[in-house]
This record gives sequence, C-alpha cells and structure tokens, in this order.
Amino acid sequence: MDKKFIAVIGGGQCSKEEAKLAEEVGRQLARRGAILVCGGLGGIMEAACRGASSEGGTTIGILPGDDSQAANPYVQIPIVTGMGYARNVAVVKSAQAVIAIGGSYGTLSEISHALQSGIPVIGLNTWSLSRNGRQDKSIIPAQNPTEAVDKALDLITKKSRE
Amino acid sequence: MDKKFIAVIGGGQCSKEEAKLAEEVGRQLARRGAILVCGGLGGIMEAACRGASSEGGTTIGILPGDDSQAANPYVQIPIVTGMGYARNVAVVKSAQAVIAIGGSYGTLSEISHALQSGIPVIGLNTWSLSRNGRQDKSIIPAQNPTEAVDKALDLITKKSRE
Amino acid sequence: MDKKFIAVIGGGQCSKEEAKLAEEVGRQLARRGAILVCGGLGGIMEAACRGASSEGGTTIGILPGDDSQAANPYVQIPIVTGMGYARNVAVVKSAQAVIAIGGSYGTLSEISHALQSGIPVIGLNTWSLSRNGRQDKSIIPAQNPTEAVDKALDLITKKSRE
Amino acid sequence: MDKKFIAVIGGGQCSKEEAKLAEEVGRQLARRGAILVCGGLGGIMEAACRGASSEGGTTIGILPGDDSQAANPYVQIPIVTGMGYARNVAVVKSAQAVIAIGGSYGTLSEISHALQSGIPVIGLNTWSLSRNGRQDKSIIPAQNPTEAVDKALDLITKKSRE
Repeated sequence: MDKKFIAVIGGGQCSKEEAKLAEEVGRQLARRGAILVCGGLGGIMEAACRGASSEGGTTIGILPGDDSQAANPYVQIPIVTGMGYARNVAVVKSAQAVIAIGGSYGTLSEISHALQSGIPVIGLNTWSLSRNGRQDKSIIPAQNPTEAVDKALDLITKKSRE
Repeated sequence: MDKKFIAVIGGGQCSKEEAKLAEEVGRQLARRGAILVCGGLGGIMEAACRGASSEGGTTIGILPGDDSQAANPYVQIPIVTGMGYARNVAVVKSAQAVIAIGGSYGTLSEISHALQSGIPVIGLNTWSLSRNGRQDKSIIPAQNPTEAVDKALDLITKKSRE
Repeated sequence: MDKKFIAVIGGGQCSKEEAKLAEEVGRQLARRGAILVCGGLGGIMEAACRGASSEGGTTIGILPGDDSQAANPYVQIPIVTGMGYARNVAVVKSAQAVIAIGGSYGTLSEISHALQSGIPVIGLNTWSLSRNGRQDKSIIPAQNPTEAVDKALDLITKKSRE
Repeated sequence: MDKKFIAVIGGGQCSKEEAKLAEEVGRQLARRGAILVCGGLGGIMEAACRGASSEGGTTIGILPGDDSQAANPYVQIPIVTGMGYARNVAVVKSAQAVIAIGGSYGTLSEISHALQSGIPVIGLNTWSLSRNGRQDKSIIPAQNPTEAVDKALDLITKKSRE
C-alpha cells in the first residue's frame, strides 16, 4: 500500500480564516493524491473535506457517535465508532502524518496521541507546548497550507525510505 | 450519501470452503456497488476483500492493533484503532447490514453488537442462538453468497424507504 | 493480588425473577469475599450490586456514558468510560469469571468477548449457542445462584493453581 | 455518592523527584479520604499508588492492556480495558479532578481529554500550553503536593455546591 493517509484535525467550530486554511489544505492533499482522514464533523473537518472533495479526493470521517448521518456532507467514507472522544486515537493512528489547524482541547488530545505514537504533527495557527518551562518543539510549524502539505508529504516519504 | 456499506465478519482463520463463500460474497458486493467493511485481518476478512478487489470494489479494514501493515493486502482503506477487540463495535456500526460467515467468539461479539444496534445480520454457516430454551431468529439465514448479498441489499433498501 | 473479581452481566431491564437471581448472586459473591464488576446500570446490574452491598461487598460499575451519576445507587466505584458499548469489553476483561443472567444482545456481546478472551462464563437462564448446527458448550450452566457462584469461584481457584 | 475520585496522571517513567511528589500526593489524597484513579502502570502512577496505599487509601488502575498482572503492586482495583491509549479517556472521566505531575505526550492527552470534558486539571511541574501565541491558563499550577491536593479537593467541593 503506497497510498498516503493524512489527518486534518481542528475544532468542530472555527473562524472563517481557519476554514479557508483547512479547505486549501484539503484541496492540496487531494491534488497530490493523499487521502484525507478526519473526525468527520463540522468546522475544520468539514472545510478540509469540502476542499478535498472539490478536487476529487477521498475523505474518511471517523465519527464519535452512533450515526453516520452526523458526518459532514463531504465525508465519503464514514466510520461509525460509537466511542466518543476515544475515537480521537483512531483518527491520528489511521494517518501517517497529521496537520493541526487551530483547535481546542479535542485537537490537543489528538496532537498528543499522534506524538505519543510517533506520528509527525504539522501545525497551522495551533497549540504550542512547553514542559517544565522548556519549549517542546515537536509540533512542526507551517506558515500556510502549501507548506503544511509539503511538510506532511515529505515526512511520510522520508519515513518510508528508512 | 446513498452508498451502501456492508460488513463481512468471520474468523481470522477459516476453512477453504468458508473462504470461497467469503470471496464470492466480496465479489458480488463489489459488482453491486456496495462498499465492504471488515476487521482488516486474515481468513474470512482477507477472502472477502480479495473478492471485492478482484471486481474493482472498495474495501475498508478496521484494525484492532497499532499498525496499518497488519491489514491484509486487499484492504484499501485501513483504519487503525489501537483498541483491540473494542474495534468490533466500530466494524458493525460502520455498516448498514452485516454478513456473518462461520466464525468464532469474536464474530459472535460482532453479531451481538450489530443486533444490539438494530443492524440486520445475515448468516452463512454461522452461529445460531437461543435464549432460555427459545430459538432467537434474529440472524437471517442465507443458503449461499448470492442469497446473502441479495438479502443484505434488500434490507438496506427497505430501511432507507421507511 | 489474590482478590477475586467476578462480573455479573445481564439486561438493563429484567423480570422480577431474574432480579432475585441477580441479587442473590450479589449477596453470595460479597459473603465469599469476591468483588463484583458490572456495567453499572439498572436491571440485573442494579440487583446484583444491591445484593452485594447488603452484605458489605465491593461493587464496581463500568459505565458506557459520560456521567458517573448514571450509575445505579449501589455502585461504589463508578468507572466512566464515555465509550458506549465498547465498554462491554472492559467489563468482562476486568473479571476472572463471568456470571450471565438472562440478558439480551448486549449481554451476548459480553459473553462473546469473555469467551474470546478465555474468561469462563457461567450462565443462569441465559443464551445458549450453536455453531453450524452443533451445540457450543462453552457457557457453563448453573441451576441457581449458589451453584453459579460456586462454579465461578472454583474456576478461578483452579486457574490460579495452573 | 459523596466519595471523591481524583486522577493522578504522569509518565510511566519518571525522575526520583517526580516520584517523591507523586508519592506525597498519593499519601495526602488517602489521608483526606479521596480515592485515587490512575493508569495503573509504573512511574508516577506507581509512586502515587504506593503513597495512597501506605495511608490505607483506595487505588484504582485503569490499564491499557489485556492483563491485570501489568498493574503496579499498589493497585487494588485493576480495570482491564484492552483498549490501549483510548483508556486515557476513561482515566480522566472517572475522576472529578486531575493532578498532573511531569509527564510526556500520554499525560498531555489525558490533560486534554480532561479539559475537553470540563474536569479541572492541577499541574505540578507539568505541561504548559499556549494557543496561537496566547497562553492558555486552564492548567491550574500548584507549587507542591499539599497545594495540589488542596486545590483539587476545593474544586470538587465548589462544583458539588453549584
């Protein structure tokens, strides 16, 4: 399997600026042949799926609840877990790299689960971390959607060569 | 979303006869445009995915472990849960109908979770149940792969008209 | 750790007769020093917890939802999973033996997960199984609460000596 | 149920200084009648359980794996989830307040899940967060174990009066 799966994570509610970023990330992922994984709901997730769909990309939504109808209209493959926030673990584990946009504590939990599993996280206007007063630089910053997608794809390519 | 998602469940190890049934179920699901959901591993799951792939169908494997490489080679969309057997819940909830072939206790847990969630289960040479001495007829029997796929698709169509 | 943890599983709604059986199972588990594990809700779970509490036993309720207040009033240790039916896996895995009383498909999923994990299941008026027309005798029948508790404790003692 | 459940979270490996903090937190929780919830493994979790046990407190360990024997020797109530890191959600949801000591990304995921669920988090030498360049002050700092336990208990008391 040489397909690339990239998760886009972020809040179920977001600003217009964040939605634009997410939509552009989705479009570029699709153009470059990557499959989009997300939590399947609104906000950043919906914007990213809309972008990917508009370019003919594939979108997977791993949902917290019991109903596939809760997926945003651009999710092509709804995965229905019925496991609440525990599904956040599956969102990031199903991806080879994660792009975080904005986001609140749910997003932070996904960033953490990704880093705990050794999955690289690229951040666009998102959390930054420090531990015991020292900055933790695990979240790789990107200035814009293109840079975020470039970095995510490069990291996957590098890892697959290891 | 008018796509049909059907789960094929059964043992990670199976007899040659069961594998033939599963492969034929996979082929027919693909020919009829349904998307195959399964637990992503070997045995029945692999045979069903092989059948679906051979007809150009889409296959989703919802894996128990932490590694997408554990998926059988015919899984196109690996979902990595890291949640062990709890993933059985997501396998059935992500489908609108379930076809059970042979199987052991893991399969029985998936049958149970499906029935608990109101998702119809069609059985091919699988478990039969009775409760307090009375037969439970919730598992809909099928004599062969064609009948199983017919019944699964009919049930979904009926439900969507309700 | 030489404490014995025994799960009592069964419907969230049950008949008066089943509730009596569950309460007596709970009482006897407590008298014999075993800790009761259950799904924390009503019906069989509540009756078993009531019985155990009346004899000064310890009761653990592993809840599907997000709120510890959903536990029945006899649960001393509520575990809040927020994972829906996936918590069924944790209910049985946290026990060394399982006593099933009556029950519907949720109970059957717990029986299956227990058998899949090699945890013995004792049945009181519950499911019986057959596979491909052959009876599966994995559920150990008991005629009454005393016999159920005896068998569960004996099985744990035997296993710990292996 | 007026018992207080407090989760102590932190790395499975930790420095001696962190272990001392955790042990003292465990001791004080026990002296003040709170029940300790944790992830059941080594490091901070073991030190906290050791402290609580030494004062006759109750300790619950919600384990990621399939084996209750993986619990540290001071866990009295092992909950076996078999769900990997998804168990982090249950660790925090089972508590009314969380004390985070040191920790790595697993701890950060627990902090995030707690904050996402509205469960207060008190931090001892742990993560600090900022979002889009602005500090997030949701983690309540404590200078020492006594202050951490005081703050956790106070917050629970306040909330129960609301």
